[in-house]
Amino acid sequence: MNKKEYALLKHREWKGKLEIICKAPITTKEELAVAYTPGVAEPCLEIEKDESLAYEYTGKGNTVAVITDGTAVLGLGDIGPSAGMPVMEGKCALFKRFANIDAVPICINTKDPDEIIRTICNISKSFGGINLEDISAPRCFQIERELIEKCDIPVFHDDQHGTAIITCAGLINACKVTGRKMGKLKIAISGAGSAGISIARMILKFGFGDVILCKSNGTIYEGAPYNNPEQEKIAKITNKEHLAGTLADAMNGADILIGVSKPGVVTEEMIASMAKDPIVFVMSNPIPEIMPNLAKKAGAAIVGTGRSDFPNQVNNVLAFPGIFRGVLDARASKITEEMKEAAARAIADVIPMEELTPDYVLPDPFNPQVVESVRAAVMAVAEKEKSN
Amino acid sequence: MNKKEYALLKHREWKGKLEIICKAPITTKEELAVAYTPGVAEPCLEIEKDESLAYEYTGKGNTVAVITDGTAVLGLGDIGPSAGMPVMEGKCALFKRFANIDAVPICINTKDPDEIIRTICNISKSFGGINLEDISAPRCFQIERELIEKCDIPVFHDDQHGTAIITCAGLINACKVTGRKMGKLKIAISGAGSAGISIARMILKFGFGDVILCKSNGTIYEGAPYNNPEQEKIAKITNKEHLAGTLADAMNGADILIGVSKPGVVTEEMIASMAKDPIVFVMSNPIPEIMPNLAKKAGAAIVGTGRSDFPNQVNNVLAFPGIFRGVLDARASKITEEMKEAAARAIADVIPMEELTPDYVLPDPFNPQVVESVRAAVMAVAEKEKSN
Repeated sequence: MNKKEYALLKHREWKGKLEIICKAPITTKEELAVAYTPGVAEPCLEIEKDESLAYEYTGKGNTVAVITDGTAVLGLGDIGPSAGMPVMEGKCALFKRFANIDAVPICINTKDPDEIIRTICNISKSFGGINLEDISAPRCFQIERELIEKCDIPVFHDDQHGTAIITCAGLINACKVTGRKMGKLKIAISGAGSAGISIARMILKFGFGDVILCKSNGTIYEGAPYNNPEQEKIAKITNKEHLAGTLADAMNGADILIGVSKPGVVTEEMIASMAKDPIVFVMSNPIPEIMPNLAKKAGAAIVGTGRSDFPNQVNNVLAFPGIFRGVLDARASKITEEMKEAAARAIADVIPMEELTPDYVLPDPFNPQVVESVRAAVMAVAEKEKSN
Repeated sequence: MNKKEYALLKHREWKGKLEIICKAPITTKEELAVAYTPGVAEPCLEIEKDESLAYEYTGKGNTVAVITDGTAVLGLGDIGPSAGMPVMEGKCALFKRFANIDAVPICINTKDPDEIIRTICNISKSFGGINLEDISAPRCFQIERELIEKCDIPVFHDDQHGTAIITCAGLINACKVTGRKMGKLKIAISGAGSAGISIARMILKFGFGDVILCKSNGTIYEGAPYNNPEQEKIAKITNKEHLAGTLADAMNGADILIGVSKPGVVTEEMIASMAKDPIVFVMSNPIPEIMPNLAKKAGAAIVGTGRSDFPNQVNNVLAFPGIFRGVLDARASKITEEMKEAAARAIADVIPMEELTPDYVLPDPFNPQVVESVRAAVMAVAEKEKSN
């Protein structure tokens, strides 16, 4: 049986990767009268008086909704809400496995951003946080932005920020390994979707250097015409020299290449044209923009991918469990830029300086220190922000 | 510590009565690659080709959403979505305890029926069924009706149908015990909200006899002016003699009294004015319309209430777990009138004729035969309906 058949078989056996169990004993009429009527009226009345008590008397404070509209599932594209469910269940499983968070998978059966926003707002009181997942760009930007404004709980589009946070964590360590100083580096990004744009923003926030984003038809620069308002915005703060050209042009002399696009768009020649000992994170999944062995052969000092079978896996599971654990424990109402930066630094710092190598700039997803470090870092920012 | 304090303490300890656990092992990178990327892509692609495979590869077929807008929670009224959550969690706990169904509690933060309908439709693909709960009348009628039309999964407002089903089950057995023949009985119902109207409809369907519904200001009869379209509709098929009067008038000579209104509206004199050996189900919670000992003293042959500390508890948990278990197992897309009737008969039949007594016309909620009988009865109807 090959791996695909095995995955199907296991999913068929599980019939859903999640199970909802009852923590309250209900084996006698007396227990029923505590967990249900008439006893349950008491916490209801307390919450009616003070809504924040929902965190004391219900599961709200440990529950996150994992929500998609099925428009950009994995690398599979717009496969619809029902077909997106196995991924949402998987994501919920990761929330439990890595952060002991109870996560509910929800697929939304509309593609209209305003309708998606209204729907999520309407159900948001049921949860302590919302993890948006696999929503296509540029719709995902508006959806996340408006939900953050309208909901009183943290909202986080993992495809945007998760990858950006782990990428920056990896870059922090990769710069240490290759002896680079942050500030004047030149960074090329292949792919200007939600991940590419978010990575660009975060790289700028960290101050690594100048970023040039490339779409399939060439570099993004201020003044060029864009249908996509997010690309228009990012053009204003990237590509300082207004380079109009191809990905090959953007990579020429670059210190860092980030790939969030598609297999095969990067050649050995393009790697060879980069600065000495370049850092190459090629995260197209499952097949990277260039295979790691070819990138290394062409001169890459450090190669990261999205895959678990190569070194330096840029795996979102390094970030979202600890981030949500932190904001839930701090009862923060937002996931702020400062929290995301703190999370990236915390992930980088999990590996002590002396253990860093070209093949070990990102910690293993199963390293239990990761979630604890990220949680602590996020909580520290939350506490600071509360006292401000 | 009194019972109220104890219920609060336990809810505070539990911090939510539900937990979401992961059935798929995720302890190694290899397992991660099956339950999540890249393996998870396979079931996604299968479901994209054939949406019905969501029942094979995800938890859809065993998952029910328990949804409220918090407008009619228990007897507490409109306490809002957050305050309704402890009850929804409790209901989900019952789904698990009695039918091994994974149930997700969702509170909706709008009172607009159209918005509620849109929101529930938009998330309905995530579930195998929807249990509406504690939504105020007459909004609940429109909401349920439109959702049944628009969703391709079963939708069931338990406050309407659950109580009606158990009441009819109890009445079937109570008629046996008191030697009554169905057909020409006279039934008074105190309360014309969602439960009262649904009970009236079901009593008529079963053919017990003529029903007179009473609101707080008197009987409902055809031709009187109503602001409530559901009351207008029910007026056309009840109260054949157009009796305009009080609850006392309606009860005069009645064989059966059903109370779904409020404490204290029924007096001993009113019970004494009923037909000989009357059947009295007084289900106002936690305090019935008349206390059982007073009703008996005034001549009631059989008394049922909503409470577990008196005989003949009309407890919804006798119906909804088996009904949903049945429609999920049959993959029925609707809960039909025939299924509800079959469920009522199945509940009544759990008690063998020779075991029936005035204090035992309804089975114990913890009798495991109940859910199995209801499930089998509902599935049998589903199979018959499919083959038609």
